[in-house]
Amino acid sequence: MPQGFRAGGLHCGLKKTSRFDLGVIVCEVPAQAAGVYTLNAFQAAPLHVTRESVAVEGKLQVMLVNSGNANACTGKQGDQDARGMRAAAAEAFGVAEHLVGVTSTGVIGELLPMPKVLGGIEKLPQQVKADGGEDFCQAILTTDLVQKMTCVQLTVGGKTVHIAGSAKGSGMIHPNMATMLGFMTTDAKIESAQLQKLLNGVTDSTFNMITVDGDTSTNDMVIVMASGLAGNDESLTPEHPDWAAFEAGFRYVGEYLAKAIARDGEGATKLIEVSVTGAETQNAARAIAKTVIGSSLVKSACFGADANWGRIIAAVGRAGQPVNTETVDIRLGDISVLEQSRPIKFDEPQAAEYLKGELVVIHVNLNMGNEHATAWGCDLTYDYVRINAAYRT
Amino acid sequence: MPQGFRAGGLHCGLKKTSRFDLGVIVCEVPAQAAGVYTLNAFQAAPLHVTRESVAVEGKLQVMLVNSGNANACTGKQGDQDARGMRAAAAEAFGVAEHLVGVTSTGVIGELLPMPKVLGGIEKLPQQVKADGGEDFCQAILTTDLVQKMTCVQLTVGGKTVHIAGSAKGSGMIHPNMATMLGFMTTDAKIESAQLQKLLNGVTDSTFNMITVDGDTSTNDMVIVMASGLAGNDESLTPEHPDWAAFEAGFRYVGEYLAKAIARDGEGATKLIEVSVTGAETQNAARAIAKTVIGSSLVKSACFGADANWGRIIAAVGRAGQPVNTETVDIRLGDISVLEQSRPIKFDEPQAAEYLKGELVVIHVNLNMGNEHATAWGCDLTYDYVRINAAYRT
Repeated sequence: MPQGFRAGGLHCGLKKTSRFDLGVIVCEVPAQAAGVYTLNAFQAAPLHVTRESVAVEGKLQVMLVNSGNANACTGKQGDQDARGMRAAAAEAFGVAEHLVGVTSTGVIGELLPMPKVLGGIEKLPQQVKADGGEDFCQAILTTDLVQKMTCVQLTVGGKTVHIAGSAKGSGMIHPNMATMLGFMTTDAKIESAQLQKLLNGVTDSTFNMITVDGDTSTNDMVIVMASGLAGNDESLTPEHPDWAAFEAGFRYVGEYLAKAIARDGEGATKLIEVSVTGAETQNAARAIAKTVIGSSLVKSACFGADANWGRIIAAVGRAGQPVNTETVDIRLGDISVLEQSRPIKFDEPQAAEYLKGELVVIHVNLNMGNEHATAWGCDLTYDYVRINAAYRT
Repeated sequence: MPQGFRAGGLHCGLKKTSRFDLGVIVCEVPAQAAGVYTLNAFQAAPLHVTRESVAVEGKLQVMLVNSGNANACTGKQGDQDARGMRAAAAEAFGVAEHLVGVTSTGVIGELLPMPKVLGGIEKLPQQVKADGGEDFCQAILTTDLVQKMTCVQLTVGGKTVHIAGSAKGSGMIHPNMATMLGFMTTDAKIESAQLQKLLNGVTDSTFNMITVDGDTSTNDMVIVMASGLAGNDESLTPEHPDWAAFEAGFRYVGEYLAKAIARDGEGATKLIEVSVTGAETQNAARAIAKTVIGSSLVKSACFGADANWGRIIAAVGRAGQPVNTETVDIRLGDISVLEQSRPIKFDEPQAAEYLKGELVVIHVNLNMGNEHATAWGCDLTYDYVRINAAYRT
């Protein structure tokens, strides 16, 4: 964990199992903070509250999260409950209210059982520890199968700096501005405004480039906290000689978490990566990559290990972007299936074998320009249907 | 069948089973024609050829269709093959080439086995008969389970007029400008240009309002042919006293076919109808209806008979349209689950019982204005995954 951060989790009774459902990240000092939030019109109550907190002085010291209940579409009571969580956490950890962020994930439209939540918050300070990252990660999961966390280390101004991150995902994943829940921490010294710019840019090419099912959640949020305790003297800005390294580390953590969410999509058996090159604009590359990764037919074909490239090109063609219909190349891993928009004879059993793997990379070269983008997703399986036919009941 | 039309079908060897795979609609006289075509950038070869035919004098006399092979992404050879089909049909039926339209549906990216197709076209004239509609319908199906056809009768200028239609759908259904394959015929007297305007308007509120899987095909097309043999003297225009009746009949046929395609979506167990009212604009109503009907999570919940309205409101919120987050009502059939954006206590077993039915109607009232729209789709099931995990192999 980056210096200055501790974390923890416990079971307060929101989940039916005994898995943790309440987690917290705590910083020794008020950390510089930045956040990105869902563009869904029905933004959940805790997002408003967190946004309000960060707005006061660009800082957060305590980040509280519960799973099992999204506190979304819960009206005035939901707003009061999110504020109640914030006040209780401020008291439990002895910090000002505006230094507390709160977020929730789970079922939409049900009121939080506040006695359980408040009881949990009271006990939370005793559960917080330097190696509490795994407990925190367990506490934020819903239908996720695996915990998603990573940490990188680099040198800034001669000092060792860490950037860590954790995330939850699984379903209702088609982020717009942010993803389900992502938490990043660093001990680098960097101002909130700069951190926000960095987060915006990285989010666009990582969290915003994944999809599980095309559904944008009401609760998407990525929060970054920077303790500044690494000891790098100057605050980081793009003019700093080590900025490029810091940005690369930050992007690595974002991309790692985004891919981890996609790989652990509901019912998924594999990670699919769609790499679009040769586009005229960055926007076109992104739109096409996201259209292909979001296609139910492409996803089903990957599940069935069927090298059905016709579905890939149909998705390329419906992305609403300029495409030269005579110049498209498509490869599945190293296997070329389409060159200059003409079918190539390929070894079907070899292609099927490749598609059976845990990682499928679909390369689409438009041969029109120099822009590129990558998107990540997963296959569409029986288990996705099973999980979502009875998520709530 | 409207006066002047005959139809037929046969098996020429494109499908592995013995089901018909080549069909034709023939008119006694050159019929006034209109068409709408997919906006997918990779428009299939036969669509170009049909467009070219209609462009010559706004007429078609023979409409040829094959299933089992889409003749899409097949390059110059595909274009030659589509022209070869047109030339062969012109010869077999003794009409000028530009009076022949051709279309194809099936696997993308494989060349048509032309000897089989040409052999079939040669035998086709003997299969054509006044009651050949069912044979034609069988010939256009791929993964469809049921044939889709209807006919209405109305009075125009004192004469009995018929409007008939047939369609195929099932997968890769998310039409943009047109749907998979739709064929409409009428014996009304109406000019091609007027027919085209009518078709555009009706398509926007029928064929363009359905989705099975969000994937827009390369081969979508709806073609209308009007024989003019009903005997109505004046050509129909919006100024004609019976225009409203004709338009309503035309719309009824379009909507009937659109709903039939949605109900018979790949793996579907039920038809889902999403009705959005109280929108500020028609565009907003349509966009929201299509977003809800396209949500994999909403579709899975309907399959599982789970009254998970949180997914419905999340989809409403991500449609990119203005929404007042305080005023939304949602009903499942007659069961109110959300009023003024606040959850209503409802009878869960009753709601589950309703959702188990073959038709689920989701009502969303935005309470912002007077515009409305309806979209149709189907549930997402194990069978959708099964069918699409191994469509081609």
